[in-house]
Order: sequence, then structure tokens, then C-alpha cells
Amino acid sequence: MVRLKLTIAYVGTNFFGWQRQKEKRTVQKCLEDAFSRICERKIVVYGASRTDSGVHALGQVAHCDIPENKLHIPWVRALNSILPNDVCVIKVEQVDKNFDARFSSKAKIYSYTIWKCWDYVLPQRVPFVWRCGEVDEELMEEASKIFIGTHDFASFQNSGSDVKSTVRTIYEIRREKGLFPEESRWIFVGNGFLKQMVRNIMGALVSIGKGKITIDELKEIFQKKDRRLAPATAPASGLCLEKVIYGEDY
Amino acid sequence: MVRLKLTIAYVGTNFFGWQRQKEKRTVQKCLEDAFSRICERKIVVYGASRTDSGVHALGQVAHCDIPENKLHIPWVRALNSILPNDVCVIKVEQVDKNFDARFSSKAKIYSYTIWKCWDYVLPQRVPFVWRCGEVDEELMEEASKIFIGTHDFASFQNSGSDVKSTVRTIYEIRREKGLFPEESRWIFVGNGFLKQMVRNIMGALVSIGKGKITIDELKEIFQKKDRRLAPATAPASGLCLEKVIYGEDY
Repeated sequence: MVRLKLTIAYVGTNFFGWQRQKEKRTVQKCLEDAFSRICERKIVVYGASRTDSGVHALGQVAHCDIPENKLHIPWVRALNSILPNDVCVIKVEQVDKNFDARFSSKAKIYSYTIWKCWDYVLPQRVPFVWRCGEVDEELMEEASKIFIGTHDFASFQNSGSDVKSTVRTIYEIRREKGLFPEESRWIFVGNGFLKQMVRNIMGALVSIGKGKITIDELKEIFQKKDRRLAPATAPASGLCLEKVIYGEDY
Repeated sequence: MVRLKLTIAYVGTNFFGWQRQKEKRTVQKCLEDAFSRICERKIVVYGASRTDSGVHALGQVAHCDIPENKLHIPWVRALNSILPNDVCVIKVEQVDKNFDARFSSKAKIYSYTIWKCWDYVLPQRVPFVWRCGEVDEELMEEASKIFIGTHDFASFQNSGSDVKSTVRTIYEIRREKGLFPEESRWIFVGNGFLKQMVRNIMGALVSIGKGKITIDELKEIFQKKDRRLAPATAPASGLCLEKVIYGEDY
């Protein structure tokens, strides 16, 4: 068997997230079905990030092992000819057997797009934004600084996760212009993210931007490590896994 | 009655184009239904451009007349609360009775987006591009010059139109970067466009870019004014009505 590294994009709207679930349409299942069909045996695909239902990806990474005699197949074209329109494989590379999409990753980059106008949302953008209305983004930027660095993010993790530690490091949170003047993109770079952590941080930042809570109150919530105290989770539609970063050590 | 000017955006994928047709889902019908419901009487909406099935818009313009006692309604919000997710009204303005969305227009801007990679298309872009594969875009730019100016575009008009003259003026055709490195946007500015004219010109330019025809052959087709000689029409998905331009004379 030889190991492949896959770079994958998808529109999450019609998927029940990444992870295989009985009788649900998931990205992992679509990929496994495509690989299994071409290899004529069951192939398991392991993703770097188990994105939730409705979350998008432009640079999800996964790995899988295939029989050596299938290595010659033009994998990108072969997979894309089978995969449905809402998921595609951008790149397929042979990698060392030690490469693990999830555990070899050094950092992940997510974007979260907000739509700042209440009156309308361009239909072209509906699946990819959170229509949160007007917000004070300078205040949000100021508040975002409290998350930078290594912290216990327990109050920004949703239940249903199996992680041992809730400590993570966020390297950067920055605001970029969006595609249209009504939107902006918030970029999150970290060594890893807990379940719904970006969406929970974004929910908190928008609460700040709307004046619903103060930065001091947010600091307190952060310190108390109790999810129930934090503002509501931002919707899945605005979130996109942009990139998974690996070192040179595999 | 007072006249309103509407600026409208839609994703054309699930519409049978702009124009009302019996028992078909069209943009005009959606808008008329929304207006008629709010005004409690039949309202007719006239569009600047009768975009075809599958063609998108970011800046379609239309006009309609409503009873004066309905002028106070917050129209943008009211319409968008009724309209489906794939069409929205961006702006509603009261205009002079002489304003006609179609006949007062001075110019229209369309964009046509091509995806230049055969192996994959990002799912986020599938509905908005033509996956035409690799093309020589410098050659296409050179060829595009033959269309600039006032010409008889008979060989770039599809049948089924009711126009009297096939003479139109194209002010500009230019290439812009797309959202992703794999795509580029071709911008068309003209005083008006015949049925499927942008898609027919784009089909011809891509034929040039793929080396299927030469610029001399294209010139000959252009001169012969016979649609049957011209290359195939580019698909609707890549086309978007970006803007309709009006003078100050209404």
C-alpha cells in the first residue's frame, strides 16, 4: 500500500459535515466511495479537520492508503469524474507512510465571512456568509486580541468532542476585505481548533461588535471556562477551512 | 401611480431566465408576485435585460408602477422578506414617469468568467464559470479588438429575437483577474447586446484561444453575418449582468 495526500474543496451546504455517519451524506463518505470504486476494495480516508455540517472548505487535507498498482491512475481527474459537483479534489500527492493528515498538521487557517447589511444579502453570497448586520469591527479587532496566544479555550468548545486538552494556540486573527463591500472576512490561524471554536469566537466577537457584551465581560467568560456563559455560536455558513499547514518533517 | 426603479441581483441557475413564461419559474414572475402581494393588485415589472435561463445578475435594473399610497413601504426589506433566496432587491428608488429600465439605458456591463483548468473546478465556482480548459488569452485579447466599435452583430445573435436592427456598439472588452488563479473574468461594455451576443462572442474568443479558428477566420465569420458559421455559444453559467448604466436625462 502507498499513502496519498489529498487536497480537497467543498461547499458544505448539502453535506452533514466531513465525518462518515450512518446513512448521511458526508464528504468523507463521498471520497471513500469514489476511492473504493476505483480501487475495487474498501478505502478509508482520514481528514485533517472534521468540519461540521454546513461548513465549507477550500483546502481540506486528507490521507488514505491505496494498493501500489493503482498509483499510476490520474487520480485528480479520476476522482473528479466520479465526485458530485459540490466536492472536488484539487491535488493528489504520494507521501511518506508517516504522513497523517490530522496529526502531522502544524497549523490550520479558517476564514469566517460576515455580511454587514440587514436589508439584503446577494444571492451569490447567501451560502457563504453570516448575515449579522451592522457591527463595530474596530471594537471586534480589539476584542480579538484576548484570544491570541496559548489559552484554555474550554468556554469556546461545544460539547460532543473527544479531545483530552482544551488548550490551543491562536497565532493570528485578522480582518480582511470581503468580495463585496457589505462583507468582511475574518482569518483565524492556530495550531488547532476545538469543536466549533472558530464559530464560538466569531459569535462572541459579533456580540462585542453589536454592543451586547463588553470586552471585560468577554474576558471574564474566557476565564470561567464555561461554554454556557458565552454568546451563541455563529452559523456554519460563514466558515471555510482555507488551508492546513504541514512542516517538512514527514 | 408612481414609478420605482429596482436594482436586482440573482443566481440564475434555478430560473428559466428573466422573462415571465407560463408555469415557469422566472425572475420577473418572482418579483411581480412579491409586488402584487404587497400592493394587493397586479403589478407588472419591466426589466432592462431579458437574461436567459441560467444567466446571473448583480445589477439587473427594472421598473414598475405602484399606487402612490404604497410609496411609504420600506420596499427593499419588504420585497426581500418575500423573495426566495436566489433573488434579492438591492435598491428601490422613486423615479420620473419617463424612466424606462430598458429604453432609458445607455450601456450595459456584462462579465463572463472562464475556468482554465480541466482537472477540477472548485465547487464554490461551478455555478458561475465555464470550464473551458487552457486557452491563450493574449490571442483572445487580440481577437476581441475586432468586435470593438459599431458593427452589425448578426452572426453573433441567436434566433428567437424580435429586434429590428442587429447593429450594436461595443465600447470595451477587457480581461480581469478572477477570484481564483484558475479563472479570469472578461468584461463586456456596450450600448446593448443582442440575444446571446456576449455568449456567442465568448464562444468565438475561446475557439481562438484554443487554436480552433484563426483571427482571420473569425473576421470572415463576422463579415458574413450568418450565425450558422460562428463557433458554439458559451454556456449561460459564466455570464453575469453586472450593471445597467443610465444617463441623467430622465
